[in-house]
Amino acid sequence: MQGFFQLISTADFLGLLERFQPLAAEQLPLVRGLGRVLAGDITVPEPLPPFARATMDGFAVRARDTFGCSDSEPALLTIAGEIAMGSPASELALQPGQTAAIWTGGALPVLADSVVMVEFTHRLDDLTVEIQRPVAPGDNVIRRGEDYELGAVVLRRGHKLRPQDLGVLAGIGITRATVHRRPRVAIISTGDELVPPDQKPAPGKIRDINSTTLAALVEECGGEPLALGITSDSVEELTKGCRRALALPADVVLLSGGSSVGRRDFTLEVFKRLEQTEVLAHGVSIRPGKPTILARRENVAFFGLPGHVGSAIVVFHLLVRPLLSRLAGTTAIPGLRRIIAVASEQIPSVIGREDYVRVALHQGNIHRRIIATPVYGKSGLLNPLVRSDGLLVIHRDTEGLDQGEEAEVLLFP
Amino acid sequence: MQGFFQLISTADFLGLLERFQPLAAEQLPLVRGLGRVLAGDITVPEPLPPFARATMDGFAVRARDTFGCSDSEPALLTIAGEIAMGSPASELALQPGQTAAIWTGGALPVLADSVVMVEFTHRLDDLTVEIQRPVAPGDNVIRRGEDYELGAVVLRRGHKLRPQDLGVLAGIGITRATVHRRPRVAIISTGDELVPPDQKPAPGKIRDINSTTLAALVEECGGEPLALGITSDSVEELTKGCRRALALPADVVLLSGGSSVGRRDFTLEVFKRLEQTEVLAHGVSIRPGKPTILARRENVAFFGLPGHVGSAIVVFHLLVRPLLSRLAGTTAIPGLRRIIAVASEQIPSVIGREDYVRVALHQGNIHRRIIATPVYGKSGLLNPLVRSDGLLVIHRDTEGLDQGEEAEVLLFP
Repeated sequence: MQGFFQLISTADFLGLLERFQPLAAEQLPLVRGLGRVLAGDITVPEPLPPFARATMDGFAVRARDTFGCSDSEPALLTIAGEIAMGSPASELALQPGQTAAIWTGGALPVLADSVVMVEFTHRLDDLTVEIQRPVAPGDNVIRRGEDYELGAVVLRRGHKLRPQDLGVLAGIGITRATVHRRPRVAIISTGDELVPPDQKPAPGKIRDINSTTLAALVEECGGEPLALGITSDSVEELTKGCRRALALPADVVLLSGGSSVGRRDFTLEVFKRLEQTEVLAHGVSIRPGKPTILARRENVAFFGLPGHVGSAIVVFHLLVRPLLSRLAGTTAIPGLRRIIAVASEQIPSVIGREDYVRVALHQGNIHRRIIATPVYGKSGLLNPLVRSDGLLVIHRDTEGLDQGEEAEVLLFP
Repeated sequence: MQGFFQLISTADFLGLLERFQPLAAEQLPLVRGLGRVLAGDITVPEPLPPFARATMDGFAVRARDTFGCSDSEPALLTIAGEIAMGSPASELALQPGQTAAIWTGGALPVLADSVVMVEFTHRLDDLTVEIQRPVAPGDNVIRRGEDYELGAVVLRRGHKLRPQDLGVLAGIGITRATVHRRPRVAIISTGDELVPPDQKPAPGKIRDINSTTLAALVEECGGEPLALGITSDSVEELTKGCRRALALPADVVLLSGGSSVGRRDFTLEVFKRLEQTEVLAHGVSIRPGKPTILARRENVAFFGLPGHVGSAIVVFHLLVRPLLSRLAGTTAIPGLRRIIAVASEQIPSVIGREDYVRVALHQGNIHRRIIATPVYGKSGLLNPLVRSDGLLVIHRDTEGLDQGEEAEVLLFP
């Protein structure tokens, strides 16, 4: 029986992903930009704010007119007008001893340099206001360009756009963004025993779980899933499926179902048959996920994933997700959010292999620490998937964790 | 000048949200179910797996035929066949002394009760295999229904569907899910000074930032944003805008721009003018976000949000997001992910008010603790938004944090 191969570490595997380059750029309206990654720096086309603005409701003044005033000796200023929201600053120029009522966000009148908060004023009549506190020039005002000077870099290439970033872009008048294309990910399940989820399986058959799961994982991390369905256990059929994926064109092809030794060999055979395709890795020293295969044809990545969905999910989070982040152009550290938790019981492992143990999390009473309880179950079961919150990491250099020992947990999104 | 109001705590505000009920249910194909919330329990329509399956590659056996065997004294079994993937179990029945080659996932032959891993076997010829380790009944096998018994509850009402959940549903043949409708959220920016982002503002005008930001925030937490654009500072116009939102129909209406005292009053005036509409809250003891208003018309919520986008974002995360979760039907604790970080410097606050301070995070050298550095900036500035990773919480009962003190940080998604 064949099937031996050279295991590599996850670090080495992630190193191989650097051979793939970020996808081409495309222009998008801002309203479709959430979660997309900038393909270039964005600089400010005009100073922001474009004019000096009040940051408080109150009275715009020339600061020197308020110097020395107090509750008992207020400065008396003449109300020259009220700054209507949205009216230009040039409509009013303050002479010495004059002031103007202003609202938060209003444009400062010409020659005004500060705003006295309404709380420290007392309006005597339509034309006169008492100022009870002095202000310094610039108080309660944002000057022109104080937020962003002309030409300042707002966001850099590789930044993933969040709601607040989109808001700032709208504010500087950038309504289209140049972002990397989303990775298109073809998904093929292989197995003579598989039927689509909407069919009742004949005796000995089961429903295809991986296509649905992988498509949702791809969607969740911002890729575009292209489900190509089920192929039978045949090198010819699977090769045809891969060619179909290339023609879409797909940027990544996920094959799953080749976890048994025989099938693993034939996934490898398929990758070897495809023209200009190089097998980069065949076996990773993790559990679950050991039989993972990675191949490359120009900038297209082929993954051979384990057949069991629980293992395929682990490999997706650890090895596929970082590639999708790279293709999408993000410069942030990819991967799941990590927290430190405490093992609820002893968790054995083996030196030389990274273990990813499904765990359920809860917050304990002592120091509000997060407790990680292993969700064991035979490798073919689905119910542990539903009951777990993340993957506890046991590193290569340890035989496992003691009860109460700290370890990193990768949180399912 | 008017505008005083009764401040309530965030806890009291969140209590008011319980007056709103989860939205109606709708049926969806599974492929559109990611992130949606179940409107009812899901039970298993048939046992899973539907037949006993191998969890390893190897040989299916009757366990008693292997009892007492070892490397030196292997059991010799007759190979009665090979279980092709997807072939029914009934095609082969093992007689005493017989075995069958099987792959992971294969259906166990009739009368077989366990699988010997291929590593512990040695094939002598086409018809004979040496078994070098004994197995007990059930070893390396998942029995029928072991994953889910008929009628077992897989997922409960209120559960938000993750990729692994969708996979399990596919596995049990459930290809449509009954989920709560997504909240439809109408967004209206008010202000005579506002122009749409794609227009060059005339002197004294600025671009509308809030519509873009709030729409992306709604999208990010699974709602459907309906941007209704800009209305002028007029009670009539804004009332018209609210009626338009009701006609859509929207489940939530977000008005922003009413942060100055004058405008706040007129947002309130609008809510009072709408028929059957009750103002539930007018002022929350948080900073930023104090002037927030909540009103209710049957199951439709109206929020009056602060005009400055930085404050509107805080109020969205703290007070709007929990309502959207509630309308979407989730039973999970709503809100942003929280971590504990350490203050990089003293951060002052005021007793009786919750402060949410924008912070940037980095991991320090000592004990790999997360350090939170305040990103200060005048309240009108945008650039602190882009530079911050989350909101540090200073509770009501404290005057602030000392340098090095621990505090909760709500992470921006």
